[in-house]
Amino acid sequence: MKKAVILLSGGLDSATCLAIAKAQGFACHALSFIYGQRHDYELVAAKRIAQELGASEHRIVNLDSGQFGASALTDTSIDVPDYAESTSIPVTYVPARNTIFLANGLGFAEAIGAYDIFIGANAIDYSHYPDCRPAFIDAFQTLANLATKAGVEGKHFTIQAPLLHLTKAHIIQTGMGLGVDYSVTVSCYQLNDKGEACGRCDSCAFRAKGFAEAKIADPTHYQ
Amino acid sequence: MKKAVILLSGGLDSATCLAIAKAQGFACHALSFIYGQRHDYELVAAKRIAQELGASEHRIVNLDSGQFGASALTDTSIDVPDYAESTSIPVTYVPARNTIFLANGLGFAEAIGAYDIFIGANAIDYSHYPDCRPAFIDAFQTLANLATKAGVEGKHFTIQAPLLHLTKAHIIQTGMGLGVDYSVTVSCYQLNDKGEACGRCDSCAFRAKGFAEAKIADPTHYQ
Repeated sequence: MKKAVILLSGGLDSATCLAIAKAQGFACHALSFIYGQRHDYELVAAKRIAQELGASEHRIVNLDSGQFGASALTDTSIDVPDYAESTSIPVTYVPARNTIFLANGLGFAEAIGAYDIFIGANAIDYSHYPDCRPAFIDAFQTLANLATKAGVEGKHFTIQAPLLHLTKAHIIQTGMGLGVDYSVTVSCYQLNDKGEACGRCDSCAFRAKGFAEAKIADPTHYQ
Repeated sequence: MKKAVILLSGGLDSATCLAIAKAQGFACHALSFIYGQRHDYELVAAKRIAQELGASEHRIVNLDSGQFGASALTDTSIDVPDYAESTSIPVTYVPARNTIFLANGLGFAEAIGAYDIFIGANAIDYSHYPDCRPAFIDAFQTLANLATKAGVEGKHFTIQAPLLHLTKAHIIQTGMGLGVDYSVTVSCYQLNDKGEACGRCDSCAFRAKGFAEAKIADPTHYQ
């Protein structure tokens, strides 16, 4: 059984990604990160998702990169803004986050002999984060094959981003077909102490829009 | 004063890199990593070097990627081999190490508004690590400019690898000219409890050869 590393945040997209990798027959090694995010409900969700979707393993890596700050997601002195239609990159952008995540995913993958790394990046219903775009994914794959012993010795790493060109509604429909329980996933950038979503941030807005367009009841626990 | 991020390991190469960046007029923000290495003398050395060479700041990031293992440098059950002339990649290779280091360097750089990231990678007197080659450095720079808000908004990140094509002797001569005290730096992969070098590993061999070729007395503390 071929191994894959799945970056698993506890959100809707990465849960769907895990279900897709599993359906493709991979032994799924899930990898989650502590990076100074505002709450740890994401990790609780990631653990449940990994278990429910039958991951072979679930690793959690404490990145310590939260110390760099400069993002509303890792610095509580910066407010998370309400959703507003825009094409600029919002203050919830975390400097080099997906580069750091994929770099760790690559190290983990090479160590266990996995050559497929799944990331739930999406370039349709998203916040214009630069590290969710096809050009970024392509550049990281090129890097991965130059950076590693396995790459030099003839293995080929593939960065699998199966959600890249899907709408949020299409992602949800895909996941429903694969048995993802979205009530377990959390998307909100600023969950309250009970783990309930704000309903106002970008991430909540894209999620709600996705369920509405997919004509599926939204299982999110709102405040 | 333009800021630069300097990846600082406590070794000979990165100390030289810091001295070069400083001589070029950068305000130097040094960045060191705990990544499960066998000893912490490297970090002690990095702290002294940062201070002696006048870094503006010295950050230490605890990476937690040592849990991936699969290297003699992060898994004490794998022996560090003695130096032997070879063109294959040795077991001291750490999966995706420089990718993880540079990814963190990029996050730090973007957070503080630095667009030059110095790394002491060398492709002449080295252990054939894939992530010390020019193609890797180029690919990371391409990635950096696609991955970041700053890159998208018109800033340009440069991965500065001033030692890439120098021999170890040339590196040492350069550093001596810039006032680097190499007695503070540590290169050995398996220092003993007193911080003394083995004199047998690849890293010791390249270092000793460098001092010999440069006709400079080797200040290394050997066992």
